[in-house]
Amino acid sequence: MNIGFVGVGRMGANMARHLKDRQFQITAVYDINRAKATSVAAEVGCAASQDLSEVTAESDVIFTVVTDDNAVRQIFTGAGDNLLVNARGKLFINCETISPGVEIDVEKLVHQAGAESLEACMASSITQARDGKLYLMCGGDEETFRKAEPILKELGSVVRYIGKSGEAAKVKALVNMVMNINTAGLAEGLALGAALGLDLEMLRQVFSQTGAASRVLETDGEDMQNREHSCFFSAAHAAKDSGIALNLARSLGLDLPLARATKEQYDRMIAEGLGELDKSGIAELTFKDRSALRKKAAD
Amino acid sequence: MNIGFVGVGRMGANMARHLKDRQFQITAVYDINRAKATSVAAEVGCAASQDLSEVTAESDVIFTVVTDDNAVRQIFTGAGDNLLVNARGKLFINCETISPGVEIDVEKLVHQAGAESLEACMASSITQARDGKLYLMCGGDEETFRKAEPILKELGSVVRYIGKSGEAAKVKALVNMVMNINTAGLAEGLALGAALGLDLEMLRQVFSQTGAASRVLETDGEDMQNREHSCFFSAAHAAKDSGIALNLARSLGLDLPLARATKEQYDRMIAEGLGELDKSGIAELTFKDRSALRKKAAD
Repeated sequence: MNIGFVGVGRMGANMARHLKDRQFQITAVYDINRAKATSVAAEVGCAASQDLSEVTAESDVIFTVVTDDNAVRQIFTGAGDNLLVNARGKLFINCETISPGVEIDVEKLVHQAGAESLEACMASSITQARDGKLYLMCGGDEETFRKAEPILKELGSVVRYIGKSGEAAKVKALVNMVMNINTAGLAEGLALGAALGLDLEMLRQVFSQTGAASRVLETDGEDMQNREHSCFFSAAHAAKDSGIALNLARSLGLDLPLARATKEQYDRMIAEGLGELDKSGIAELTFKDRSALRKKAAD
Repeated sequence: MNIGFVGVGRMGANMARHLKDRQFQITAVYDINRAKATSVAAEVGCAASQDLSEVTAESDVIFTVVTDDNAVRQIFTGAGDNLLVNARGKLFINCETISPGVEIDVEKLVHQAGAESLEACMASSITQARDGKLYLMCGGDEETFRKAEPILKELGSVVRYIGKSGEAAKVKALVNMVMNINTAGLAEGLALGAALGLDLEMLRQVFSQTGAASRVLETDGEDMQNREHSCFFSAAHAAKDSGIALNLARSLGLDLPLARATKEQYDRMIAEGLGELDKSGIAELTFKDRSALRKKAAD
């Protein structure tokens, strides 16, 4: 089985590295950042593809790990060059977090091209990608899922079939929406604790033992305190994903004030040049004594 | 040691019951709801006190478990009758969640009356009160804390000294502020999931395995789904506690948009007559198909 990758940012690159370690053949790597593609291609032992159609030609299974709705539309429908040229019999596995509607549109186009597609949304980060321990939520035809399951199990410690195309994207948007709310709320709690002069080690420990406990307290609490915002999951991605959920809510006539307030905070980070900090960087907005230092943090 | 209780709502009553089970002597019970006082007094084997000063006279240690800042001011400073009449040598242990400033004021008055006081904020609910498994965060003189520690250990599985008077109240306000945010956020996630037609059992399971996981998911998620809002911790209390945190933030010049949005949701519950539902009842605001049934839920 020949495997191609479109989008080799840190997630895609780590997935490719892991599959190579597991003796899979990576035959094509593409990224709009040509230098990135060349570097990752050299690592995994293939050439960097010049065109998207080349990836399709050289691979049986193509993983796409690009940024957002527009990027996905571009790689599947771009004029002149796209992944669906001579795509008959190929399997596309789409791993980015995008709007459910786009997943559904893409699946239709893929089917029209005589190929198959699956969404495999990742609720984990770059470390898990490198270790083949992703949490994968999959949507699409169940038959396609069963076919893809062995390779997905190489990449994920949990590989879960959610339902038809778009369903996994919905669940993924909700996971990130709630995670982002909890993150923004935690930042407020720690920031107020700091402003009150409380010992934040103690405060985090009390949070962990009470109704304030959360997964993000474990993953981001200490980083918020120590201003360690090396990026695992960027504020810009957090804003995007909360935005996907809010668009879904809007289309259904639901108002979600917490999700809205959270999206506004992540948008503010982007506006202040902090979008490429980790999501824990939201604490930079709320800690009282940090505003003056924000520019520095963004440098 | 003679023990008195002021405020025997479900928390105070359960603490009194537990101490009685552990062979402590409950000598006085007071509540502004006279019927409640009489009933709990009969259970624990004493008379319901007519006056607050009677509780002080009949007890060495007086637990106060009343509702809010105003109630605490009233019981300690009320004209004609209050707890500080002939209070020399008594120990007051204040368990309600109130503003740190009120804790500090009360401690001053108690010291002036020749007595001692301690704040013992409870980060747990009525079941834990009944079982002597409270999570107690204490503030006040450390010497007073050491003196009170044995009886506090009868009531709590964790008894933690936080610092001087007011410090435990600060931590408690933060715990509940973050808990309330996580609760409101979870309600939005489940409500959007329901509106999207997702299986909420599946969704809650995915949340529990990903970055959306939280303590409130464990305690309130299923209740939100099943509309089971029997009160353990009321929406009205949630509003009050988020309000305490927001007042602290305001006094320090901090804006906390998530905490604000959460407080507004809990205030909305009160305005719609849902304030006595459990905090999980916030889901009644956000689930799309529930608005028409809200009045019913409040009956």
